[in-house]
Amino acid sequence: MSKEITSRQEDYAQWYNDLVIKGGLADYSAVRGCMVIKPYGFALWEEMRDTLDRMFKDTGHENAYFPLFIPKSFLSREAAHVEGFAKECAVVTHYRLKNDPDGGGIIVDPEAKLEEELIVRPTSETIIWNTYKTWIQSYRDLPLLINQWANVVRWEMRTRLFLRTTEFLWQEGHTAHATSEEAIAESKLMLNIYADFVENYMALPVIRGVKTASERFAGAIDTYCIEALMQDGKALQAGTSHFLGQNFAKAFDVKFSDKQNKLDYVWATSWGVSTRLVGALVMAHSDDEGLILPPRIAPIQVVIVPIYKGDERKELLEAKGKEIAAGLKKAGIRVKFDNNDNNRPGWKFAEYEKKGVPVRIAMGLRDLENHTMEIARRDTREKMTFPEVGLIERIEKLLLEIQDAMYRKALVYRDAHVTKADTWEEFEELLDNKGGFISAHWDGTAETEEIIKEKLKATIRCIPLNNPEEEGVCIYSGRPSHERVLFARAY
Amino acid sequence: MSKEITSRQEDYAQWYNDLVIKGGLADYSAVRGCMVIKPYGFALWEEMRDTLDRMFKDTGHENAYFPLFIPKSFLSREAAHVEGFAKECAVVTHYRLKNDPDGGGIIVDPEAKLEEELIVRPTSETIIWNTYKTWIQSYRDLPLLINQWANVVRWEMRTRLFLRTTEFLWQEGHTAHATSEEAIAESKLMLNIYADFVENYMALPVIRGVKTASERFAGAIDTYCIEALMQDGKALQAGTSHFLGQNFAKAFDVKFSDKQNKLDYVWATSWGVSTRLVGALVMAHSDDEGLILPPRIAPIQVVIVPIYKGDERKELLEAKGKEIAAGLKKAGIRVKFDNNDNNRPGWKFAEYEKKGVPVRIAMGLRDLENHTMEIARRDTREKMTFPEVGLIERIEKLLLEIQDAMYRKALVYRDAHVTKADTWEEFEELLDNKGGFISAHWDGTAETEEIIKEKLKATIRCIPLNNPEEEGVCIYSGRPSHERVLFARAY
Repeated sequence: MSKEITSRQEDYAQWYNDLVIKGGLADYSAVRGCMVIKPYGFALWEEMRDTLDRMFKDTGHENAYFPLFIPKSFLSREAAHVEGFAKECAVVTHYRLKNDPDGGGIIVDPEAKLEEELIVRPTSETIIWNTYKTWIQSYRDLPLLINQWANVVRWEMRTRLFLRTTEFLWQEGHTAHATSEEAIAESKLMLNIYADFVENYMALPVIRGVKTASERFAGAIDTYCIEALMQDGKALQAGTSHFLGQNFAKAFDVKFSDKQNKLDYVWATSWGVSTRLVGALVMAHSDDEGLILPPRIAPIQVVIVPIYKGDERKELLEAKGKEIAAGLKKAGIRVKFDNNDNNRPGWKFAEYEKKGVPVRIAMGLRDLENHTMEIARRDTREKMTFPEVGLIERIEKLLLEIQDAMYRKALVYRDAHVTKADTWEEFEELLDNKGGFISAHWDGTAETEEIIKEKLKATIRCIPLNNPEEEGVCIYSGRPSHERVLFARAY
Repeated sequence: MSKEITSRQEDYAQWYNDLVIKGGLADYSAVRGCMVIKPYGFALWEEMRDTLDRMFKDTGHENAYFPLFIPKSFLSREAAHVEGFAKECAVVTHYRLKNDPDGGGIIVDPEAKLEEELIVRPTSETIIWNTYKTWIQSYRDLPLLINQWANVVRWEMRTRLFLRTTEFLWQEGHTAHATSEEAIAESKLMLNIYADFVENYMALPVIRGVKTASERFAGAIDTYCIEALMQDGKALQAGTSHFLGQNFAKAFDVKFSDKQNKLDYVWATSWGVSTRLVGALVMAHSDDEGLILPPRIAPIQVVIVPIYKGDERKELLEAKGKEIAAGLKKAGIRVKFDNNDNNRPGWKFAEYEKKGVPVRIAMGLRDLENHTMEIARRDTREKMTFPEVGLIERIEKLLLEIQDAMYRKALVYRDAHVTKADTWEEFEELLDNKGGFISAHWDGTAETEEIIKEKLKATIRCIPLNNPEEEGVCIYSGRPSHERVLFARAY
């Protein structure tokens, strides 16, 4: 069998690309920085999206949909916001093509120029708060708990499949509240929902924290985040939840009258996760044979491969395979019975390993006679034999075990990669040779943060929530510090 | 109670807008021709989307996602296609904003001009077939049955909420096949799925047919369609399914080798329905009091309103209301118990009528004592009393009855509005005074079609499938004709 996937050791970045493309998740497109999400990758995103959507709805949020385009003047209303996004905006300037009268083919019609340019949304705070102005008058209209599933565009110079693409899919929650406390509680609630999802569905432990001022969302008072660790020791921001204060309410003049009929600006949050999570999932769990997907969000949880030579007993195996698939499906398990004659069993084994299907059931004639099945679990590559009696219960249990084992493995790795550094030398040495999160003292200034970023390409990923106080001195400047923060090189 | 909704008789167009906005489905946005889909409207779209998505998956289709942007040169590859869409394209020309050095605020950075302009997709045949070129080599790769849920942009000059907006949400299926027959069968299958959905979920009868050459999709060999009738006698195209022949395969050079290793171009279909269906649903069923939604896709199927004065017995009613809501929910019914103290029962009654909730349960103290509930059905506005015993079964039955009655009512209306015309005078008189579909002979020429459109604003909606042969003469030109076609004024 040809070795299609570059090993991690050989070239980590290429390994990742191989997994994404050869695992059937995505493909490059003809449009710079944009990708095509292939059916298997999209099915994975659907599992993630539907799970999150349920969690959002269970906490009282509703979906809505706002325009793709944002008038240029809207983006400019909140100063920090436009500063943060201006450099990466796709701009619509015209609304018509025509045949070049000089025979140059199809050209943009210069007469169809827009009076005001439209920005393809990089995020929707401005268009949404402009709408909220008409929806909110009184405390009775609050809280407004709205989420949107959408595509957004940020013109990135360097792109990578799923991790950083010009267009990506995401959800963006935008809520409006009567008090600061309520808005802060909402942004923390959503952070916890993200953490719950990433840990319990994606089997990936995260650190919950708050960003430093220079890493905040453009226009936020505070940005809460969850940070995960990849297998190469680099961190990845997996989700953010912003407390926006009254910034957008002031920019778009959104006031409400409280129970005492007093007017005040509305308090806001926004929060989002994106298809970037698919990249995190791939990088966190996979091995050199292919993807390893956690059962709870795997599009296919169990694949059944019949093994036969010639046609004689094929029908028997087919009938049994279908029967077992039907039983698993009835138990709520996402199962595929692959009886495609075009491919041999060995090819199928490799294919589903590459695709990260958690459990494979192989079924030959001898198994049929013995009333057993050969089971292979993808995460550990262990093989075992299950009796046909009680198969469904065993598979259910195995899927839970795999989910749990994947989380524990990632947790052990992550915990082994949070290291304290107390000197600059230690700090540098850890970054270069061990990676992971480095817990170190920082003097609290943006200057120091910037210097460290320039010198070592490490950023402050977050100040963990419930961080213990500890007196110390800044790893770089030697100035006093009252708590450690987490540094890392990051995606 | 203030009359918020303009009556149909007074102003049909305003009635429609009032329903959409005051029924909480959508709102105008600050962006020309784009709308905001509000939570209740989006929940309705979600019901429609999820139902269709299930139907697509049950017939072997998979979802994927392709880029929002299409290079200008791609659009030009298929001549008829670009001809059809060039006039309504939103064009991205730049990828950055900057601060005007002359103090003019935020401006488009002239140095960030794209080498090739990008079109915001009006439909995705070109970008998808450019991708299929790399996915299809052999008959083993076929059929490729892919669907995408996406936003698209068509720069329409005159827009109307849901019915015609610059940006809209839709699904677009794009399939690839080894033979012409298979592709034609696929486009008819999808047409039937659309008809099944619109009739059995939206309770709206449709006529299945094929478009004339001049009404075809730009780039199609044949466009199949379903046509529905609105309450003002105008037709509305509710979905289309296109047999594209080898046009896009040729434009993007997509060939496959068959079992005999012979190379041939791939055969294609595409098919789509959009948020326009929400507009159709509103126009087809609603009355002067508000929306009337068919139970199978209503976001809220049953609303429970407790009726009390003072606080004393409130707890009793609350407990009972929650108990009933829980029972209905357990039976799979989408139910809302509205115990919001800010609004009075009368206000709530009007509100849920406006929102078209199929069944309302009102519950006062006397009902509690009598172990009965007051039931109101939205479609007929009938009231009845149900005993508490067996309530769930009765409600289930009632929802089915409403679904059925709504369909039958629409069918009776539609059937009464398919009229034969044999003279030009009859034709004109029917169009002006009765509306609906007019079944008439046509000479088969685009010229006659165009003249009729100019003179009377009527278009050929379709040539019905399985249309009987009948000798006659064209309603306009008097030339011979072998079958009748359906004319109407349309949205």
